[in-house]
Amino acid sequence: MKENDFLDNTTIISYSGDNYEKTDFSSISEIDFSKNKTNIKWLNTYGIQYEEAFKTIVHQNKLDDFLIKLLSDDEHPNKVILLDNLLFVTIRVLKTESHVLDSEQMIFIVSTDFLWSIQEKKGDYFNWIRERLEGNKGIVRKKSADYLLFLLLESIIDNYQDTYQENAELSADKLNSSHIKPTPEFTSLVEKRKQELFNFKKATLSLRDTIIKLEKVEIKGVESKYFSELKEQTNNLISNIDFELQELESKINLIFSIQGHRLNEVMKTLTILSVVFIPLTFLAGIYGMNFENIPELKFKYGYFILLGIMVLITIISIWYFKRKKWF
Amino acid sequence: MKENDFLDNTTIISYSGDNYEKTDFSSISEIDFSKNKTNIKWLNTYGIQYEEAFKTIVHQNKLDDFLIKLLSDDEHPNKVILLDNLLFVTIRVLKTESHVLDSEQMIFIVSTDFLWSIQEKKGDYFNWIRERLEGNKGIVRKKSADYLLFLLLESIIDNYQDTYQENAELSADKLNSSHIKPTPEFTSLVEKRKQELFNFKKATLSLRDTIIKLEKVEIKGVESKYFSELKEQTNNLISNIDFELQELESKINLIFSIQGHRLNEVMKTLTILSVVFIPLTFLAGIYGMNFENIPELKFKYGYFILLGIMVLITIISIWYFKRKKWF
Amino acid sequence: MKENDFLDNTTIISYSGDNYEKTDFSSISEIDFSKNKTNIKWLNTYGIQYEEAFKTIVHQNKLDDFLIKLLSDDEHPNKVILLDNLLFVTIRVLKTESHVLDSEQMIFIVSTDFLWSIQEKKGDYFNWIRERLEGNKGIVRKKSADYLLFLLLESIIDNYQDTYQENAELSADKLNSSHIKPTPEFTSLVEKRKQELFNFKKATLSLRDTIIKLEKVEIKGVESKYFSELKEQTNNLISNIDFELQELESKINLIFSIQGHRLNEVMKTLTILSVVFIPLTFLAGIYGMNFENIPELKFKYGYFILLGIMVLITIISIWYFKRKKWF
Amino acid sequence: MKENDFLDNTTIISYSGDNYEKTDFSSISEIDFSKNKTNIKWLNTYGIQYEEAFKTIVHQNKLDDFLIKLLSDDEHPNKVILLDNLLFVTIRVLKTESHVLDSEQMIFIVSTDFLWSIQEKKGDYFNWIRERLEGNKGIVRKKSADYLLFLLLESIIDNYQDTYQENAELSADKLNSSHIKPTPEFTSLVEKRKQELFNFKKATLSLRDTIIKLEKVEIKGVESKYFSELKEQTNNLISNIDFELQELESKINLIFSIQGHRLNEVMKTLTILSVVFIPLTFLAGIYGMNFENIPELKFKYGYFILLGIMVLITIISIWYFKRKKWF
Amino acid sequence: MKENDFLDNTTIISYSGDNYEKTDFSSISEIDFSKNKTNIKWLNTYGIQYEEAFKTIVHQNKLDDFLIKLLSDDEHPNKVILLDNLLFVTIRVLKTESHVLDSEQMIFIVSTDFLWSIQEKKGDYFNWIRERLEGNKGIVRKKSADYLLFLLLESIIDNYQDTYQENAELSADKLNSSHIKPTPEFTSLVEKRKQELFNFKKATLSLRDTIIKLEKVEIKGVESKYFSELKEQTNNLISNIDFELQELESKINLIFSIQGHRLNEVMKTLTILSVVFIPLTFLAGIYGMNFENIPELKFKYGYFILLGIMVLITIISIWYFKRKKWF
Repeated sequence: MKENDFLDNTTIISYSGDNYEKTDFSSISEIDFSKNKTNIKWLNTYGIQYEEAFKTIVHQNKLDDFLIKLLSDDEHPNKVILLDNLLFVTIRVLKTESHVLDSEQMIFIVSTDFLWSIQEKKGDYFNWIRERLEGNKGIVRKKSADYLLFLLLESIIDNYQDTYQENAELSADKLNSSHIKPTPEFTSLVEKRKQELFNFKKATLSLRDTIIKLEKVEIKGVESKYFSELKEQTNNLISNIDFELQELESKINLIFSIQGHRLNEVMKTLTILSVVFIPLTFLAGIYGMNFENIPELKFKYGYFILLGIMVLITIISIWYFKRKKWF
Repeated sequence: MKENDFLDNTTIISYSGDNYEKTDFSSISEIDFSKNKTNIKWLNTYGIQYEEAFKTIVHQNKLDDFLIKLLSDDEHPNKVILLDNLLFVTIRVLKTESHVLDSEQMIFIVSTDFLWSIQEKKGDYFNWIRERLEGNKGIVRKKSADYLLFLLLESIIDNYQDTYQENAELSADKLNSSHIKPTPEFTSLVEKRKQELFNFKKATLSLRDTIIKLEKVEIKGVESKYFSELKEQTNNLISNIDFELQELESKINLIFSIQGHRLNEVMKTLTILSVVFIPLTFLAGIYGMNFENIPELKFKYGYFILLGIMVLITIISIWYFKRKKWF
Repeated sequence: MKENDFLDNTTIISYSGDNYEKTDFSSISEIDFSKNKTNIKWLNTYGIQYEEAFKTIVHQNKLDDFLIKLLSDDEHPNKVILLDNLLFVTIRVLKTESHVLDSEQMIFIVSTDFLWSIQEKKGDYFNWIRERLEGNKGIVRKKSADYLLFLLLESIIDNYQDTYQENAELSADKLNSSHIKPTPEFTSLVEKRKQELFNFKKATLSLRDTIIKLEKVEIKGVESKYFSELKEQTNNLISNIDFELQELESKINLIFSIQGHRLNEVMKTLTILSVVFIPLTFLAGIYGMNFENIPELKFKYGYFILLGIMVLITIISIWYFKRKKWF
Repeated sequence: MKENDFLDNTTIISYSGDNYEKTDFSSISEIDFSKNKTNIKWLNTYGIQYEEAFKTIVHQNKLDDFLIKLLSDDEHPNKVILLDNLLFVTIRVLKTESHVLDSEQMIFIVSTDFLWSIQEKKGDYFNWIRERLEGNKGIVRKKSADYLLFLLLESIIDNYQDTYQENAELSADKLNSSHIKPTPEFTSLVEKRKQELFNFKKATLSLRDTIIKLEKVEIKGVESKYFSELKEQTNNLISNIDFELQELESKINLIFSIQGHRLNEVMKTLTILSVVFIPLTFLAGIYGMNFENIPELKFKYGYFILLGIMVLITIISIWYFKRKKWF
Repeated sequence: MKENDFLDNTTIISYSGDNYEKTDFSSISEIDFSKNKTNIKWLNTYGIQYEEAFKTIVHQNKLDDFLIKLLSDDEHPNKVILLDNLLFVTIRVLKTESHVLDSEQMIFIVSTDFLWSIQEKKGDYFNWIRERLEGNKGIVRKKSADYLLFLLLESIIDNYQDTYQENAELSADKLNSSHIKPTPEFTSLVEKRKQELFNFKKATLSLRDTIIKLEKVEIKGVESKYFSELKEQTNNLISNIDFELQELESKINLIFSIQGHRLNEVMKTLTILSVVFIPLTFLAGIYGMNFENIPELKFKYGYFILLGIMVLITIISIWYFKRKKWF
């Protein structure tokens, strides 16, 4: 039953410059990378759970048996492992649409004349490649399996680039520099975006590592130029992410600067007012006392003289703050 | 006596594709890596204190005598030292369960056809490997000693990954972003977690260094692909740690932002109130003075006029703060 | 029609030590890098949209067909891709005049005896090189195509250097250290300049990467010494940018220090005044109470004794602040 | 005279697996590394000032004459310089006991069969090695001069490790996390320790560089495995230093967080009190005025009504702060 | 005329182990590096503006014609460019005396048997080398041109070391840790020194890059050991600069810590005083009201009871602050 399931989810495309053929299987034993030597074979499986079937394929095609161990691992971070004339590549394809760090597993096993791709979930990621192959568009049918791997990886990178672009625009709307608010809520939004970006950068760096390893691989029939091209694309994406991170850092600095400035403004207002009124209120307090003998109280113009003194004190205070450039 | 002790704590497993044998020893002189050439020998010792026994084994098997010096060191950080066709590997296996930085020493001496593991403490770390060997599960019996080393190291990395996961979840519960408190106690918790992570990262980086050195080792019969696989696993762990560190850094920023914001709020409240009431209180003070000649006091509606002026001052102050966007 | 358009925008310069020739084409089929082997051919196209024409040229000159894929990409970050005895170089030339991050695409395809440059926009960037070629100035006519590439890249770097210089002077005027203002507006200006610089540094780093890759390329007839020279120039530019970034970082530190200092000054003023007057006002309040029995009120010199006590309190407060070095 | 001085401070130890000999000299001309080829010669000099004697030794043993230049330099940072089949190694051995950055100069000149060590000061650093040599302990007598260099360097690293350990414990006592005080004095202590550590790290990094260079040296008879071992030890020390630096950084963060928190607490206390009492005091001021016509003053229960209003205002204020979670 | 000028500023020193000769020229055509093959020739020119003369020398000695391009550049950052069996080295020698970032250009063109040095300004930088050459001191006359380059570069590094030392002492006097003042003026001084150091570090790093490139150069007759020695010296200088930068960073931290502490102290003083006096003043205000019916006012000991209550409130407040550890 599991075998049937596996067979339902597996197809092979076999192509060369002149021909193209897509077949299904009725039995695992039909999967044979060695037949039809001049064609490139692309075996595609949806689902990573068919351990037994994988084992059978590895054995009957006499592939490196370390593959069995590798395919049975529970979790796959991005990996490139060089086996005997085989490349084992796994990539966790990040999906950032939902702001949840969801990802899909993809596994590629590549040799000169075949590529075996295992995708965790069904999807139309690679349909455009199948169309190019069938319609003989571009140069893919003239090239060997490494070019196919290049196209598969390019799909993934393009997808990263698109999701990054979208998210960046969304976030730019929310965090527009022109109305930075020095509230913890705003800070929290900025920090959340920073974490999103760090996560995205982590995934992209890991993908670049994978590509750099592929670029350095020395296997007959694997050309580094394809992976140079991919590396430049990931480099570009990473430097865009770094730039946005830099902008967010600036925003945090600005928030703290605005907070500091506001506090200064508030305190200055309070202080100026206090400095002006505290001595005046004290003076009023003095002449509100009930001592029997306060001579000034009996002066005819005592009240008016005091008001004059108060005006004078106010003027002096204001002049003092002006000199100190407080306002 | 010490020799008997050593013998009690030492077993050898000898295996090849077809056979599996586990033996104890009655004398150190029986430990001979050269016999039964086609089998892989796995010698395991619990306890690192048997210096004399180690010396005897090194001599009678004609291993590099620098091993004697290395085995007699008091402390072993993570090391990979390449001797003549031998690898000397030591790892301090971190135990983070108890939040105390406890660790256990493990030493591996590996050649093409034997592996000598020395564990500081008895434990069931590697029992699953013994079971695989005995039950001939997986591909371990078909492979040479480097694959055994791979499995031993994988156990250690898996253990790191598990303890990290556990601790991360515990800490996430305590430091949940949604209720950050700007208290020194909370800051202290965040900083403590940061130090835990730094320590863990240090251990993992050191382990990765060890694995990278193993990957680069050029000894006949040691295959780099196994260690590539391990390296990818440690890389994954390190990037998870980095991501959590980043989150904690964000929390510290948020704490300071909240502190700044609260101070601003508190000061604004104080200032608004003071600015409104200080002049009013001053005015009340004025007419509380006991001068004999204060004409206003005798106006019939003096009191009500003053109340009106006070209301006016209040309205102006509030309008001023509204314009300045203080509330 | 598109072909005619392409032909209008394309010219070839063919030169050697002794001769120089500039020709236009009437048909794409005339573009043949293989004729006149002893001359260097420089094909220049304005416009990156002539995909079909590019394809034809690649085919009829039997260049690596991966070029077709590369030339059909929508976006080109800086790239160096090594094809069979060919170099594919793309550069996004940053234009910083308008403070908008505008850029122009340039593509160079270089072999020993030809260089094909594709510029997105018409411009007089490279006219001085054409003049040198025509007038046989300098050593350009004696050298092969890699020297031509060197001169083209030098133009770009010189342009970067000039725009950087200009912008740096403009910004220095605005952000002059001697009148740093601790306002969010000033902080915002500093941060904006920092982002400008980061962007510029990003572009320059990417250009340096390109040049470093060119330096390391091992193609017959490409000499690394030219690119060493260019690398030193970009290094110089990067270290100038880093230095300005450092200055801006210092300014941010100074702003926060000034803010903190001002807050301290303001608070000290408020506190000193409050500490002096609050107890005095309290005392005045005490003797303003209307209790029937307050013996002090009846003392003949009660008022004057109280004034004396107030002066004493003031002196003690001031002495206390002096001792605490508050002013 | 200077020569006699030099001879007094110089001894040679000559050893091989079977024999051990320690001799003094009566004349510089007796110092001849070439005699007794099968033995390892260890020449030790206390004092770096004997330039003339050094020159004579270099000449009569036909060593690389660049040694003369090197030995006449005034100051020696850590260096490894590869001469013709000779290694010139200098190390500044840091002494951190006295918290003053004191250091001692050591110079090692190493070839396959001799090692010449020059120590600035007399000391018993290397006595344990002499004892091992004399007593034929360990494997030192079976190894060549590079193993001797390994032991000398190990002494230095062990000493670093010990002094680090001691200082770390001393500082941990003073800066114990559990009673962090947010005073400039405490900050200053933390920063002083940070600088001490940076200095120590600097010295250790420089020592590691030296060892890494020794590891990479390709001289006949110098085995990299010894220096691998030393490198791992310095790596371990550096990662311990980094960890303590990280802890100190956390302390600085905590100090600032505590300061911010305290300020908030202080300001909240002040503000709550002010907000409650300022309006009350204003009301009391109103009814302390001396207008002739204030109707409320004549109400029988005016005073008690006002007290009631004041209680009401207080309750409202407190309710308001409770709702705002100020306490 | 320009040629005469050039000849006036140019001398050649020709030396070998046995002879030494210093000559001037009457015509550029006499400058011929190929004559007298066994001698080392050191051509020295003051002034970088003699483009035409340089061109003639390059041509008549058949040096790499890329030199002409290099010598005609307007600005030279530090460069090492490897030409055919020639080294082209340019260094901007920083002058830090005047705190203005002034620098002098030096160009060295080195082959096995000649060195051509071009200095922008006349100076006595290298006179001590001429004296050593003339007096046959040291080993310079026995060595080839690379040793001469080594001595020239060592002069420059020594000069850097000296100016750094001087500046560091000057700055240490001004910024002495024991009297850090938390004023913007002090911060500004610290930041200015930081920028000075960054600039100096930039120059030293660039010089080290130059030396590292020289160390790696593979030209017949250029020995890497000389440049190893120089590299160690620059490394030492850089690590001293880094240490001072670290100290300055600590000072900035301390300044902010002091500012925060002072603010806390000031606020505590204000708050304690306010908290004590505000309720007392309120009470005095209550009994200063003029209600006709305030029963307490008629109590015989009302005044004294109130005073008692006030003392009680004061004691409670002080006890509260003591418990909260405010003082």
